[in-house]
Amino acid sequence: MDYPQLNFRHQINGEKLIIVIAQDYRTSEVLMVAYMNFEAFKMTLETGKAHYWSTSRNKLWFKGESSGHIQTVMEILTDCDKDALLLKVKQEGAACHEGYYTCFYREITNDNGFNLNIIKEKIFEPEKIYGEK
Amino acid sequence: MDYPQLNFRHQINGEKLIIVIAQDYRTSEVLMVAYMNFEAFKMTLETGKAHYWSTSRNKLWFKGESSGHIQTVMEILTDCDKDALLLKVKQEGAACHEGYYTCFYREITNDNGFNLNIIKEKIFEPEKIYGEK
Repeated sequence: MDYPQLNFRHQINGEKLIIVIAQDYRTSEVLMVAYMNFEAFKMTLETGKAHYWSTSRNKLWFKGESSGHIQTVMEILTDCDKDALLLKVKQEGAACHEGYYTCFYREITNDNGFNLNIIKEKIFEPEKIYGEK
Repeated sequence: MDYPQLNFRHQINGEKLIIVIAQDYRTSEVLMVAYMNFEAFKMTLETGKAHYWSTSRNKLWFKGESSGHIQTVMEILTDCDKDALLLKVKQEGAACHEGYYTCFYREITNDNGFNLNIIKEKIFEPEKIYGEK
């Protein structure tokens, strides 16, 4: 099988990576950003479920494998430099391991100084999905 | 002035960076992904116009400085790891230097093999904005 030539130019711990944005295919809400190596890219194309490269664990990461919060890929776009992907996904549960639907749940506001404010609601308690820390 | 503590964990050529996604604040279309170093982050907060770190030119990049295609920042969100930003922007002209409103103008489709298909319309001719190559 031939795969589109992408530019895996981002290197972390020697792994060659592309940046990947996951976006809700219905609402267009941006859910998360992560990396893929070539293997994760191939697995995503072959299975239709989002796979990433975990830069903290240095391993292939099938998103939702343990939590059930998988992402079914509806559409894949790439950018002008071919070093990034935009996945339009159907998100099961929530994208964020902290219990929010999107990882982008905090806004930076300027009220006499810059602050971080939580602007989304938690939709699950992480302890119930991932166990106690 | 105090700035929110972010995790500039992505390193390219020794520069410490965060990933930044720019999204149209009205339509929620994802326009581009790039990096910021601390200086670009500070300039973006202070001016309200998107500044990035150009990893190809190794310099601060005021988006639209030469083309006029600036991004006015309407909202800034950060993610659970604080190593990425989501900018909701009002885009002048087009985000992509190739003449498309978004850098994500190609879709990866599977028609007996994976192909890249252009799915957006060009809204300007790059030569007219950036000069002949």
